[in-house]
Amino acid sequence: MNDSYLNFVNSPLGARVARSLGLPKPEVLRRYRADAPEFDGIVAVGAGPAPQLLDALADVVAHIGMTSVAHASAGLWVPLANRHGLMTGRFEPADPATGSQARVRALVFDASGIESSAQLESLYAFFHDALRSLDKCGRIVVLGRPPEACVSPRQWTAQRALEGVTRSLGKEARRGIAANLIYVSQGAESGIESTLRFFLSPRSAYVSGQVVRIGAAPGGIAQHFGPDFDWTQPLAGQRAVVTGAARGIGAAIANVLAAQGAHVIGIDIPSATDALDATLRPLGGTALALDIAAPETPAQIAAALDELGVDVFVHNAGITKDKTIAKMTEAAWRSVIDINLSAQERIDDALLEAGTLRDGGRIVCVSSISGIAGNMGQTNYAASKAGVIGRVQGMAPYLAARRITINAVAPGFIETQMTAKMPLALREAGRRMNSMSQGGQPADVAQTITWLAHPGSAGVTGQVVRVCGQSLIGA
Amino acid sequence: MNDSYLNFVNSPLGARVARSLGLPKPEVLRRYRADAPEFDGIVAVGAGPAPQLLDALADVVAHIGMTSVAHASAGLWVPLANRHGLMTGRFEPADPATGSQARVRALVFDASGIESSAQLESLYAFFHDALRSLDKCGRIVVLGRPPEACVSPRQWTAQRALEGVTRSLGKEARRGIAANLIYVSQGAESGIESTLRFFLSPRSAYVSGQVVRIGAAPGGIAQHFGPDFDWTQPLAGQRAVVTGAARGIGAAIANVLAAQGAHVIGIDIPSATDALDATLRPLGGTALALDIAAPETPAQIAAALDELGVDVFVHNAGITKDKTIAKMTEAAWRSVIDINLSAQERIDDALLEAGTLRDGGRIVCVSSISGIAGNMGQTNYAASKAGVIGRVQGMAPYLAARRITINAVAPGFIETQMTAKMPLALREAGRRMNSMSQGGQPADVAQTITWLAHPGSAGVTGQVVRVCGQSLIGA
Repeated sequence: MNDSYLNFVNSPLGARVARSLGLPKPEVLRRYRADAPEFDGIVAVGAGPAPQLLDALADVVAHIGMTSVAHASAGLWVPLANRHGLMTGRFEPADPATGSQARVRALVFDASGIESSAQLESLYAFFHDALRSLDKCGRIVVLGRPPEACVSPRQWTAQRALEGVTRSLGKEARRGIAANLIYVSQGAESGIESTLRFFLSPRSAYVSGQVVRIGAAPGGIAQHFGPDFDWTQPLAGQRAVVTGAARGIGAAIANVLAAQGAHVIGIDIPSATDALDATLRPLGGTALALDIAAPETPAQIAAALDELGVDVFVHNAGITKDKTIAKMTEAAWRSVIDINLSAQERIDDALLEAGTLRDGGRIVCVSSISGIAGNMGQTNYAASKAGVIGRVQGMAPYLAARRITINAVAPGFIETQMTAKMPLALREAGRRMNSMSQGGQPADVAQTITWLAHPGSAGVTGQVVRVCGQSLIGA
Repeated sequence: MNDSYLNFVNSPLGARVARSLGLPKPEVLRRYRADAPEFDGIVAVGAGPAPQLLDALADVVAHIGMTSVAHASAGLWVPLANRHGLMTGRFEPADPATGSQARVRALVFDASGIESSAQLESLYAFFHDALRSLDKCGRIVVLGRPPEACVSPRQWTAQRALEGVTRSLGKEARRGIAANLIYVSQGAESGIESTLRFFLSPRSAYVSGQVVRIGAAPGGIAQHFGPDFDWTQPLAGQRAVVTGAARGIGAAIANVLAAQGAHVIGIDIPSATDALDATLRPLGGTALALDIAAPETPAQIAAALDELGVDVFVHNAGITKDKTIAKMTEAAWRSVIDINLSAQERIDDALLEAGTLRDGGRIVCVSSISGIAGNMGQTNYAASKAGVIGRVQGMAPYLAARRITINAVAPGFIETQMTAKMPLALREAGRRMNSMSQGGQPADVAQTITWLAHPGSAGVTGQVVRVCGQSLIGA
């Protein structure tokens, strides 16, 4: 739970030691705090030819109250920003004589109009000029169009190339900076706000190197929130269930969902009742002591929720029983698959059939980097977590008719009691092998889940988002 | 070019030193040699419920002349194998008393009938019993159905879970064993032979942790080769172009294409003429000294090939100009994008428009792990290589009408003059951070390309296959 190296190199003495020995110096990440402004500082805007998302971007920047500066590549921004009543100016690259440079909190590039590989040069122009101006713990967001929806192979190629740029920027920016790519479908422009807020906010501190697609929300985004929507309490009046809520990541999820206004129903096994109560009592939540693996549980959950229904269901509960397959028992295979994967299927079936999960609801599942990359000694766990990815991809089109979204988060190395027990060398490798050079916090996973649970994220479905600080590990 | 650690730990003294210090001991990989049998030994067959691919598998096993044993999970195999005239028997797990165990060269599991997460247990049963029987440098192949084509979310989920199992098996099997997953579309069963041969052969020595999809070949697979097809010379009578053919990976590609019967036309920049000639002369190939970046080159290539046309085009030429983006020159950005990506687009356009690339032809592009994961100091290179992935995905549907396939290989750490110049620590990290604990050889990339160029690979298109020994690095 405690990264003593991180603490050490961020102490005055430790910083000097690290510098003189050439050791990595992970930043203390800027995370969301209720007592600090979520959005402040300046966003620098760049654009490729014929950008299509600046209007939607200006809307969001105006809402969140950041000021903006326009890079030379985004000449359209200044009049547009003025029209949105935004404070704005021109981005000035560093003065080579003095080295002085404007400091900005975020770099946002609208690449939606890029149609050819040669036009990718506009990304070079912007990030070459602006990357050094980005504050530590800053944000890089590239906006594009989904390659698979492009009309020509050349456009598809150029839009797909954005992944290579964004992921490389994440790896070279360091200093706690997160870089992500958002593909916005034609017609989904008005639905970008919850996602853009998340990626510009300290809430996304440990989410980097990710590619997210926003599609058009079935029935339109406007039905999900009116003009007087309270962005500080997006889940007000909603009921959210979290499995495995007693401790660790599950408890963090319960906390963040409650902080955003939800009534939280926490589920955990009967033997964890005390911890479950301790988590939920301060939140005014409801504890349900149930073993999700028991065959009768889905019906019991549906019955317990039946009268009021549920808006958000977070499938977080999971176990590991690691062994190489030759040494693994059949019981170890079976229980991991059953608890991590089959139980999710049974519960969703029961809730969907009974209509307990309301139309327009949200399902969020917890997968894992092991489900993406596989892992030694985790054939069972990786199968279950890869299956969760398949579930999300397979259920999304099927649930769209009911305007229900289903997504997954895939945590990397998160500082929990589980990782605290790992052997030192393995723990240190896990912590450092990512662009943040540190492990994430349970709250980082919880914040990501809460973005996916947001009413405004109606166009985000079938996605898998890693919460891994851009871990080196992948497939 | 020379991995002295690999050589050392495989010497009698080095093996003792490595053992006593607990150092990793990479295997000397078994690679394809013209003077050794490509297929020999025993394949052990396992299956989940209602397997659908055993008939097609028996066909291939009979053709390549391996013997087979059936695991208890694959009860259907014995009668089926007998019908195909296959030598076959039953797989016997290790005797716990003596520890003695049958040795097999390959484990093949037919998971095509798996419809639910609980049924994944059949994979556990097979690999639990059989993994220890697998020889070093053995092969694991899992056969499934493409999740995205499954009729129910539960089937999609279970088929997607196969990725987690296969990738984990690759990571824990070690000993030079490669594990790969092949998704076979309904109706594509008769088109699996070239792919299955590749993944069972020593030709795929450095390809592990990959997921490949085989679709139905447009017009049917039978038109691509008759019953007397010569599998030792699959490219006989064909003309194949390789860009960047003078040295390194390009020269290896030229060699392997020629060994499979193709007339090779090698292209490289005029300053590399001597090396290009030296590569192509022993192959009886044709050298074209052309700068692929020059605007007139596509027309010149088309003109040079015009009379006879071309069957296979390998876009291998590429450059790196690494710098963090703040320090990168515009020229460095532009030339990397232009040579690695835009030139491919211009050449294909010219060849396709002129009909120089024949219907039923093959395009293979060289991408990179950097194009998948991004890399520090490689915004330009990663953009170009991610763009290559987009090109392959975007062009595949567009070329299907002409029965042309387009695929990419993404090399990881390959032992070349380029990697030999890397700083030691970086080179060692690159070499060891994969399931083979060593770098690949240029021939490994070339063999993979030649599989994709095979007439029998008509159903393989739009795919990106890593040649990386299952590198830890990914996205």
